Amino acid sequence: MQVLHMNKGEGETSYAKNSLIQKKIILVGSSMLESSIVNILREIEPTSMGVADLGCSSGPNSLTVVSQIVHMVQAASHQMGRVVPELRISLNDLPSNDFNYVFQSLPELYKKLKHDYNIEGNCYIWGLPGSFYGRLFPSHSLHLVHSSSSLHWLSKVPSGLEPSVRTHLNKENIYISKSSSASVVEAYQQQFHKDFSLFLGCRAKEVIAKGRMVLSFMGRQSPDPCADEACYQWELLAYALMSMATEGLMEKESIDSFNVPYYASTIEEVQHEVEREGSFVVNCVEALEIEWDSVDPSDLKESSGTLAAKTMRAVAEPMIKTHFHLGEEMTDELFMRYAKIIDGCFFKKRFRYINLFVSLVKKD
Amino acid sequence: MQVLHMNKGEGETSYAKNSLIQKKIILVGSSMLESSIVNILREIEPTSMGVADLGCSSGPNSLTVVSQIVHMVQAASHQMGRVVPELRISLNDLPSNDFNYVFQSLPELYKKLKHDYNIEGNCYIWGLPGSFYGRLFPSHSLHLVHSSSSLHWLSKVPSGLEPSVRTHLNKENIYISKSSSASVVEAYQQQFHKDFSLFLGCRAKEVIAKGRMVLSFMGRQSPDPCADEACYQWELLAYALMSMATEGLMEKESIDSFNVPYYASTIEEVQHEVEREGSFVVNCVEALEIEWDSVDPSDLKESSGTLAAKTMRAVAEPMIKTHFHLGEEMTDELFMRYAKIIDGCFFKKRFRYINLFVSLVKKD
Repeated sequence: MQVLHMNKGEGETSYAKNSLIQKKIILVGSSMLESSIVNILREIEPTSMGVADLGCSSGPNSLTVVSQIVHMVQAASHQMGRVVPELRISLNDLPSNDFNYVFQSLPELYKKLKHDYNIEGNCYIWGLPGSFYGRLFPSHSLHLVHSSSSLHWLSKVPSGLEPSVRTHLNKENIYISKSSSASVVEAYQQQFHKDFSLFLGCRAKEVIAKGRMVLSFMGRQSPDPCADEACYQWELLAYALMSMATEGLMEKESIDSFNVPYYASTIEEVQHEVEREGSFVVNCVEALEIEWDSVDPSDLKESSGTLAAKTMRAVAEPMIKTHFHLGEEMTDELFMRYAKIIDGCFFKKRFRYINLFVSLVKKD
Repeated sequence: MQVLHMNKGEGETSYAKNSLIQKKIILVGSSMLESSIVNILREIEPTSMGVADLGCSSGPNSLTVVSQIVHMVQAASHQMGRVVPELRISLNDLPSNDFNYVFQSLPELYKKLKHDYNIEGNCYIWGLPGSFYGRLFPSHSLHLVHSSSSLHWLSKVPSGLEPSVRTHLNKENIYISKSSSASVVEAYQQQFHKDFSLFLGCRAKEVIAKGRMVLSFMGRQSPDPCADEACYQWELLAYALMSMATEGLMEKESIDSFNVPYYASTIEEVQHEVEREGSFVVNCVEALEIEWDSVDPSDLKESSGTLAAKTMRAVAEPMIKTHFHLGEEMTDELFMRYAKIIDGCFFKKRFRYINLFVSLVKKD
C-alpha cells in the first residue's frame, strides 16, 4: 500500500503533468456533483457542510474539485435564496501522497475564492492522510463525499497473488488477462468485494442521513472481467515487461510474482455491494468511454502510444519501480517499449478505458 | 512569510535533528497542558473535542504533542470515570511547512494509539496549512489550542524595517540590539501588538466558551527589549554576518536591509494584549530559562558554540539563505563563524533564552 502513490513533483513524468484524462473525467462528472450538491442543500439545509475528497492525489486537479464544489455551493445557495453554508473540506489521500505540493497551491486558491465570492473565513481546507479502506472521519460529520480516479485501486494485491506466495498463479501477467485462470479472476473479485464493502461500511458511519457520495473510477461495461476495456492496458504492460525479460533485462520470475492491486468493476458489481451493505441507495450511474490517447490538443504532436504510455507511467511508475527495482534508465526503456507496442497495433484495435460514475444517497 | 519555515527533511542541519531545545520546552510545558485538559473535560464535558496545534513544524516533536494530548485526555477521562471524547486534532503550520514528513509518521502513531488504548476510529488527525495570524478554523469548533515555539515569529518584518525601505534604520543589526534606535524598538513592538491582537481575535472566534489555549514561545523577563536574553543570539549572528562583509564575502548593504520577523515579548506585554482584546483570561504564566547549549547528553562531544549554532541554523537558515542568496558553502561558513564567536566568549557570559508559557481560558 505504501507504493500506491502517483509520481511526485512537477517533472516530465509526474502525475501533475499527465493527468489530463483525470481532468476530463472530473469535468464529465461535474454534472453529477452539481445535482448532488443541490439536493444536499435542499434536503438537509446545512449551515456548515462537511465535504471529503477521497484520493485527492497531488496535482492541479486536487484543487480543481475544491473550487468546483465551492462554486457550486455558492451558486446553488444563491439560486435558492439561502445563506451560503460554511464549508469544511478535507483532502484525503494515502500518507505517502505529496501533500506539500497541494498545500503550496492553497494560498492562491484562498485568494481566488476571496476575490470571486468575498468569502474569507467561510471555507476551511484540511489535508487528511489515511486509507479510505478504513475509518477516516468522525461519525456523522460528512454531507458530501467525492472520489475520482481512486476506487479502482484495491487496498492490497488479492490474497494468493502476493509476490511472497511461492506458486505464482498468474504467470506472465500482471492483472486479469485472457490467459488468467478462473482462480485469479476470483481472487481479484473477492478482494474487490472485501474492499468495496469495507469502503461503504466506513462511509456509512461518517456520512449523515441524506448525505451523498459521487464516485468516479475505472471500470468496465462488459460482464467479462477479461474484456479488453478492463485489462488490455495491463496486458500490454506485461507484454513490454516480458520482452525485456526475454532479452535478459529483467527476471521473468519477478513478472510472474507481480500483480497490480487494481480492479475494473461493473456497475452491477458496485450496485450489488451497495445493496448488500444496505446504508446507501444508488441514485444515478453513468459510464464514459475514454480513448487511451485522448488528451489536450496542444499535445497532439506525440504518438498515441507515447501519450498512453505517459498516462500509464504517471499512474504505475512508483509501484513498478519498487517491485522490479528499476532505475530511471530501465523505466524509460519499459515505457518506450510500451508506447511502441501500442503504436504498432493502434489502428487494428480500438483502445479505450471505461470510466464509471456512481452517485449514492445515504438512507435516513 | 513564505520563507518562515524550518529546514526540511532529515539531514544534519534539518530542524528534525536539532529540535532538542524545543523538545525540552514541550516537556516543561506539559503540566500546563495537562491541567488545561482536565479543566476542559470537567467544565465542558465534550463528547467530541476539537484540538489545534498551531505551528506544528516538521519533526519528531510534531507528533509528540499529539500523543501527549491523546494520553492526557485518556488518563483524565478514566480518572473522572467519563467516556473518552472523540478527538479531532488539526496540525497547523504555514503552507511551506514539510507536512509530508509529518504525515509519513502518522500510520505509526495510529498503530501505537491502537495498541496503547485500543482506540481505532476515535482520534482523527488532519493537517491544516495557513497562517495563525488569520482565521484557520470554523467558528466555535475548538476546545484546546496548543502552540509551542511559534508565537515569537511575527507575521512579517515590522513596517519601516523591510528590505525594500530605502533608508535602513537598523544598520549592522538584524533584530533589536543595544545599538538600535528607539524607532526600531517601537516598530517591533507595534508589529507584535498588531500580530498578537490579531491572533487573539481569530482564536476568540474559533475557541468555544471555557475552551483553553496553552502557548509557549521565546520571550524575555527583563522589561528592556534590548536585554541580552531577548536579543543576544541575533546580535552575535549579525556580528558573524558583519565579519563576512568585512572580508568581502557579502555585501554590508544586505545586512543593513535585513531584519528578522521575530519578537521576544514579556509576560506583561502578552497580558496587556489579552486584556485589550477581551475574550480570554490569563490563567497561568511561567518563564523558563534555557541555556543555549542545553541539549541531549548524547551530543555532549560538541562545543557549546557548535550546539547553539545548530539550533540557530535549523531555525534561521531558510530565511537567511533567501535574503542573502547564500549557497551551502557560505551558509556553512556563516554558522561556523557564529559557533566560534559563541565559543570565544562562552565562559565570560551566560547565554540563555527565556521561554514563556501562558495558559488562557475563553470567557463564557
